[in-house]
Amino acid sequence: VGLLGGSIGLALRERGLARHVIGIGRNPRTLATAVSLGAVEESTTDLAVGVAEAELVIVCTPVETIADHVRKIAAAAPTALITDVGSTKEQIVAEAAAARFIGSHPLAGSEKSGVEHARADLFAGRIVIVTPTATSPEDDLAALTEFWQSLDARVVTMTPAEHDAALAHTSHLPHLIASILAAATPESLLPLVATGWLDTTRIAAGDVELWRQIFAANRDHSLRALDDFAKVLAQARAALEKTDYEALAALLAQGKRVRDAVGN
Amino acid sequence: VGLLGGSIGLALRERGLARHVIGIGRNPRTLATAVSLGAVEESTTDLAVGVAEAELVIVCTPVETIADHVRKIAAAAPTALITDVGSTKEQIVAEAAAARFIGSHPLAGSEKSGVEHARADLFAGRIVIVTPTATSPEDDLAALTEFWQSLDARVVTMTPAEHDAALAHTSHLPHLIASILAAATPESLLPLVATGWLDTTRIAAGDVELWRQIFAANRDHSLRALDDFAKVLAQARAALEKTDYEALAALLAQGKRVRDAVGN
Repeated sequence: VGLLGGSIGLALRERGLARHVIGIGRNPRTLATAVSLGAVEESTTDLAVGVAEAELVIVCTPVETIADHVRKIAAAAPTALITDVGSTKEQIVAEAAAARFIGSHPLAGSEKSGVEHARADLFAGRIVIVTPTATSPEDDLAALTEFWQSLDARVVTMTPAEHDAALAHTSHLPHLIASILAAATPESLLPLVATGWLDTTRIAAGDVELWRQIFAANRDHSLRALDDFAKVLAQARAALEKTDYEALAALLAQGKRVRDAVGN
Repeated sequence: VGLLGGSIGLALRERGLARHVIGIGRNPRTLATAVSLGAVEESTTDLAVGVAEAELVIVCTPVETIADHVRKIAAAAPTALITDVGSTKEQIVAEAAAARFIGSHPLAGSEKSGVEHARADLFAGRIVIVTPTATSPEDDLAALTEFWQSLDARVVTMTPAEHDAALAHTSHLPHLIASILAAATPESLLPLVATGWLDTTRIAAGDVELWRQIFAANRDHSLRALDDFAKVLAQARAALEKTDYEALAALLAQGKRVRDAVGN
């Protein structure tokens, strides 16, 4: 029960959307915090006990452990619908194929992690990508869609592969670039960084192990996104090298056009 | 008179640090705004008139026009000390060598430009880099240092070349990388961007022509910084390619260490 799980619990309880919200985890202290914050009504470290009477189970662990949890949950609660909040989908969905599972990915992170930063409105207006497969029952997809919509999220449906290809560009590549930029900055110059460097490298402060798992789970699409980036980088370098400042300005203008299209 | 010039004027007037603050510019409407906001007491579009009795003149124009302005100011007001707020220094200082000029660069920008966003406390606690040469009179350097300190800035002194090499890493490279990342993002995926992409690409929204001039004025150092970045990028790519996730995690950890050392 961290930021996402805690926020789901708070939102469900604030809206009276669930008869019962149970937090399952390994760390009793975190679970106690979740209970005291009202994110869950009760908690347990015993997965089978926690999910026994569940209609919906949401796995909020790092991506490499999700499929294994899904299989255990499916064994303990065969009638429960299971989803997750992981940042990658193709591998997880493939490994959880035998379970009653449809993957989800809420685009509602934060630099802050931990249940103590949970907020009932974390999903309000945010996109949640739901990734059914050809064999996902329509009723399950409808139920999962309704669940996220009840938290005021906007649900977008795509295949697990489409999800991973898209997120490689919109999330995983930016993280890698921010890390590379930070890692490439000579430490003696850090007193001279200003707003631009701070913004551009902010997500490099993210949890290393969580991100290692994301890149491992989405290697192929991440490589392709990185190569797309490297092509534009080579154009920028060539323009600078040849002092072709019109070409460089055209590239800056294209970046500005894309960035302005999104807004702050 | 834009964000920086306006903020200097507001700070000087709020603290009663100058007998007289005159704004000089080409656009009468901008000058009228500066007067009405209290950033300057009076204004003129005539450079020679504006600087005639000045002790200190601060040139706040795009980098390619600074040296020319400095030469004109030196001709009209031979006893005035002249400085600027440009993002590059080596070329400007070389071209202004004949004038009583010492370059400055306040690390106090904002995505917002224009005198209407000027703030008297824009420089408070921020670094201003001052770049004297071997021939800069010590009294002038002392006066300029005292001037920026009177606006509560922290003054750091380095040579113009040291400045440009440092800022290539801490400011110009991040801008270029943010622009490349935005330009390389498929526009069909923009609805799926979240906090990470938004932070990492924010400065790509900057003024294209101002940045074209900065890269043109700091081409050599920018190329070197870009090549340093490309080396780390190649390491990241190789680690992904070889599924060497320990090497990738080490790179992410190095980025996190650097980023965490700076704080938000």
